Amino acid sequence: MVAVMTPDELTDLLAREFPQSSHLGMVIEQAGDMTARLRMPVNESHLRPGGTVSGPTLFWMADVGLYVAVMAMVGPKTQSVTTSITMNFLRLPTPADIIAEVRLLKLGRRLAVGDVSLFSEGMADPVAHVTGTYALPPES
Amino acid sequence: MVAVMTPDELTDLLAREFPQSSHLGMVIEQAGDMTARLRMPVNESHLRPGGTVSGPTLFWMADVGLYVAVMAMVGPKTQSVTTSITMNFLRLPTPADIIAEVRLLKLGRRLAVGDVSLFSEGMADPVAHVTGTYALPPES
Amino acid sequence: MVAVMTPDELTDLLAREFPQSSHLGMVIEQAGDMTARLRMPVNESHLRPGGTVSGPTLFWMADVGLYVAVMAMVGPKTQSVTTSITMNFLRLPTPADIIAEVRLLKLGRRLAVGDVSLFSEGMADPVAHVTGTYALPPES
Amino acid sequence: MVAVMTPDELTDLLAREFPQSSHLGMVIEQAGDMTARLRMPVNESHLRPGGTVSGPTLFWMADVGLYVAVMAMVGPKTQSVTTSITMNFLRLPTPADIIAEVRLLKLGRRLAVGDVSLFSEGMADPVAHVTGTYALPPES
Repeated sequence: MVAVMTPDELTDLLAREFPQSSHLGMVIEQAGDMTARLRMPVNESHLRPGGTVSGPTLFWMADVGLYVAVMAMVGPKTQSVTTSITMNFLRLPTPADIIAEVRLLKLGRRLAVGDVSLFSEGMADPVAHVTGTYALPPES
Repeated sequence: MVAVMTPDELTDLLAREFPQSSHLGMVIEQAGDMTARLRMPVNESHLRPGGTVSGPTLFWMADVGLYVAVMAMVGPKTQSVTTSITMNFLRLPTPADIIAEVRLLKLGRRLAVGDVSLFSEGMADPVAHVTGTYALPPES
Repeated sequence: MVAVMTPDELTDLLAREFPQSSHLGMVIEQAGDMTARLRMPVNESHLRPGGTVSGPTLFWMADVGLYVAVMAMVGPKTQSVTTSITMNFLRLPTPADIIAEVRLLKLGRRLAVGDVSLFSEGMADPVAHVTGTYALPPES
Repeated sequence: MVAVMTPDELTDLLAREFPQSSHLGMVIEQAGDMTARLRMPVNESHLRPGGTVSGPTLFWMADVGLYVAVMAMVGPKTQSVTTSITMNFLRLPTPADIIAEVRLLKLGRRLAVGDVSLFSEGMADPVAHVTGTYALPPES
């Protein structure tokens, strides 16, 4: 399967559908072939005391990463909704950019399932691992 | 088991440990006896387009709710960390206050496990259901 | 919403659809109104060494419990499939009957979501907590 | 990190600790370096009607796979217990051997976290994806 949306088109889609996320400054580095890679620049506003990235920010990035990976394959089905997310927090993030490596495990007509490994740039081991499920809208 | 911290003491603890959450305006309505109840006033800044509360905001509220329920029972063990969160998104929230009903299922020496039902005020059915695990610090 | 299948009809359905489960001897004590209650008699064949009920047996009971709760409400839609299960193991079961208390959190046209609290009979606190999702077949 | 137990030693450990699993005939093909690979020969006794492997059997294989991967790295800490398992069911298995590819994401002093991709032999895409957490016993 090949991508039907480019990173630029996906970036525009995010800005339209999730305008409140724009302050996170997420960059879509790659999307297609059932995978995606996003980067979120480190930013004081989403750090916890002690300099680590907060749980809600990691949640946000994983959720957007899955959305981007799905939209890249099926086009802008903006009625898609997250139905479940499971996060395992593995290590404290460092105050560095966060990288999300997204992998779709299934892309059916009605459900998409994927996992996301989140890294602090420069660390070999992930800071969190996420699995998520999206419900796709019925074909019109 | 009885609570060892009052809602006021827990509110102060949150303000110190999670200062960035203060803009969410969460109110601890009850905490103790292995349960807690929190309210988050509806607020433009955490609404998605269309007027529903965003996924990261629901995540945040569930995570803080579990933290509050645990701290109420064990005292300010601020080295506790969330190890996992599973969220099921059930219905679109309405633009109303969000209520979190927290229930601890286990409070061991090393692990606490609980679930959280999140409601839009005035709706009978939950908008999301969350289970989470906290690792408690070793006794010093 | 009221039940459209009785416990006896559900028992027959299980025997037809999951004949291999019959050796577990599960009894449907109640089903309907978005809830169900099942009992599994303690039985040497599904005990672990040390006399506790094994993880796969608890999984099985939770999965069947959700299936029963859903079928009670929607009728014998036997094309329904489990799409996800999250289990938290809380305490060691005792060598007593296992009771499953099932609660549906959402019953949509395409997805059903519920949770299950599993108890060893005679213990106040659950031995495991489970959330699960079923995909319902499209209307024909 | 290198393995401290060989596949043969791990096979003996499983036979001692989980004698009831022996009928599943699981074979440990590789274990160490934070990974493991197990095979379960197809067998009438764990097939569902229709010829697919049942959910509890997939659960069992994932749980044992994580146990093997952890024990390979830390030695026979048989007091370790599964604390949580999240399974996503992706496709119907075929009536072929099941292969479990296990990957540890974290191996701390107190908690180990990993994921398992389960395949029907000969299929490129996984039939299920599992994340699990083990609590390791305190150092004596």
